[in-house]
Amino acid sequence: MYMIQKPTVLLDEVKCRNNIRAMAEKARRNNVIFRPHFKTHQSHEIGSWFRDEGVECITTSSISMAHYFAGDGWTDITVAFPANVLEIDKINELAKSITLNLVVESKDTVIALSKALTEPINLLVKLDIGYHRTGVAPDHVEEIAGIMDEIDRCALTTLRGFLGHAGHSYAAENVDEIARIHVESIDLMNQVKTYFTKRYADLLITVGDTPTCSVMEDFTEVDEIRPGNFVFYDLTQRQIGSCTLEQITIAVACPVVAIHADRNEIIIYGGGVHFSKELLNHPKHGTIFGLVAEDDGERWGALVEDVYLARISQEHGTVHAPSAYLDKIQIGDIVKILPVHSCMTADLHSVYLTTDGTEISRITH
Amino acid sequence: MYMIQKPTVLLDEVKCRNNIRAMAEKARRNNVIFRPHFKTHQSHEIGSWFRDEGVECITTSSISMAHYFAGDGWTDITVAFPANVLEIDKINELAKSITLNLVVESKDTVIALSKALTEPINLLVKLDIGYHRTGVAPDHVEEIAGIMDEIDRCALTTLRGFLGHAGHSYAAENVDEIARIHVESIDLMNQVKTYFTKRYADLLITVGDTPTCSVMEDFTEVDEIRPGNFVFYDLTQRQIGSCTLEQITIAVACPVVAIHADRNEIIIYGGGVHFSKELLNHPKHGTIFGLVAEDDGERWGALVEDVYLARISQEHGTVHAPSAYLDKIQIGDIVKILPVHSCMTADLHSVYLTTDGTEISRITH
Repeated sequence: MYMIQKPTVLLDEVKCRNNIRAMAEKARRNNVIFRPHFKTHQSHEIGSWFRDEGVECITTSSISMAHYFAGDGWTDITVAFPANVLEIDKINELAKSITLNLVVESKDTVIALSKALTEPINLLVKLDIGYHRTGVAPDHVEEIAGIMDEIDRCALTTLRGFLGHAGHSYAAENVDEIARIHVESIDLMNQVKTYFTKRYADLLITVGDTPTCSVMEDFTEVDEIRPGNFVFYDLTQRQIGSCTLEQITIAVACPVVAIHADRNEIIIYGGGVHFSKELLNHPKHGTIFGLVAEDDGERWGALVEDVYLARISQEHGTVHAPSAYLDKIQIGDIVKILPVHSCMTADLHSVYLTTDGTEISRITH
Repeated sequence: MYMIQKPTVLLDEVKCRNNIRAMAEKARRNNVIFRPHFKTHQSHEIGSWFRDEGVECITTSSISMAHYFAGDGWTDITVAFPANVLEIDKINELAKSITLNLVVESKDTVIALSKALTEPINLLVKLDIGYHRTGVAPDHVEEIAGIMDEIDRCALTTLRGFLGHAGHSYAAENVDEIARIHVESIDLMNQVKTYFTKRYADLLITVGDTPTCSVMEDFTEVDEIRPGNFVFYDLTQRQIGSCTLEQITIAVACPVVAIHADRNEIIIYGGGVHFSKELLNHPKHGTIFGLVAEDDGERWGALVEDVYLARISQEHGTVHAPSAYLDKIQIGDIVKILPVHSCMTADLHSVYLTTDGTEISRITH
């Protein structure tokens, strides 16, 4: 059994391994490569749980994160972020020892890379499949062809295919909307692939947001999936329908430091530096920063009705709770809170504590 | 000169020391104790800049942070957060070597402390002077007296006085509102002090939000001030009138990784894990996560009109910019962005890079 003294991320290993296994099996059923995004957990130890499910290649969102995982024996890493040419020294260093796949969306980036590369790397052209954050519009085929020309011109870069991220699925309101985004975004990628089939016979299509990978069953039209958040899931994923409450694998355990029964509030040690300031518009409670789950000792159980993290400042959290809950709470108790966005919450901690009391380290900043 | 490769907090030491000096002088003019809150910078090195201005006692927001600064020779520390009884072992350890002042707002906390304390500590009773986050309402004098009784009953706790935090000043819309909050909150604290004057002749009144400490000149009615954010300031403080643009001492330097001229956007390497997701409602641009300043080489200059951090995800930032700015920007350039909330932004980094190229470490999590 463990003791909590300050805000701590609790991790349920059993649930987490189940999430990993389910996604690995879905990839196998579809005969697609499973290249999970490791930006959510950022931990060697949790990475090894993916190895246990046969995973051999991974995704990161930065060169630093790729270095961290290369240091644990991962030898095929895609950095799913527009290549940052200022990190060329680290790119070359990494490309010496692993298969490094970078993402580009402009000729300028390819030209800058080609001038300074000393090692071979693979490139994926980022397509904007509806999220409108990064990527080339799929109908800008001449622009795409221009990028391909530059890749071909450079002896050290090899075109691997097209990378898309349907990030707009996170803003979906329900499963039907996720399904529509899934079909549309994969269709857009295949249109581009088809257009260039004569020039390149063997281009890869890789996609991978957690909502579509969780909700949809058919991935036969793509070659690779890269979901990340599903390893932990969170309240946002639950609200849009991409996971159940039982699939959420982390909770932040926070000490109770003050009780204000007159205004139905509990003050916890646990604020923006422990949860992040990511918020969720809850259908009943409005803006929330987390929901309180029942504490069944080592783990956590069902949600406690109407008990939620209503406000946060740097280290304080204000939990709103009905009197029946307040009557049972005392100074020095622990409240277990499910996070709104697990990627952002996990990033604020250097250690996970498993529900059986083992500390698991993650990358530090 | 320095080189930026990934998102980096730049710190202007000259401006920072000026902020520290100005506040130290204001405290001296008012003949009040200056006990700066160190939760904003969380750095031994920057702490030493306060020593250079004669500061001898400090504030932290956690026991961990108090340990960090005690390790650098600070011997009088107030933890301005409701005492977390679960950290009793660390409290006892700390109280062995320094003067430790904790904050309480309930009898239950005092009783829990008294049962487990092995070393003497000072206590301050937290009063709710209008922010309604923590503290006892000033007119609940019997409740306050009850807490005092418990403090007197315990041989190892000494009542030092009353602590207030007018945190609602951060939501002020202008300087007039800050001034009103200042007068009202200090008046509330003095009413309580006066009420208990017969019982305790020598109780301290300590207040200390950055807005009132920055804007107001008269602090003769209090004994101690504890501002923190002023060491760096930020866009929120500027918007409510508690600092000028020139007083903001940190900027996040971020690489440009993509340019989307068609929609007036630049994608930077710099997202929620570098800025936090704290947002500001800007009068012209609506929700923003930062404003772009001119890059004058080592430092930064005036704001660039209409160039702002419009959206952020985990590692991506989307900067909105007019065509005239976009025309001058290239892949691999650096954009310097002033943060919305410096405490939250700084907390996401383990190092500050001064504008003359020196790395300054801070506490790591």
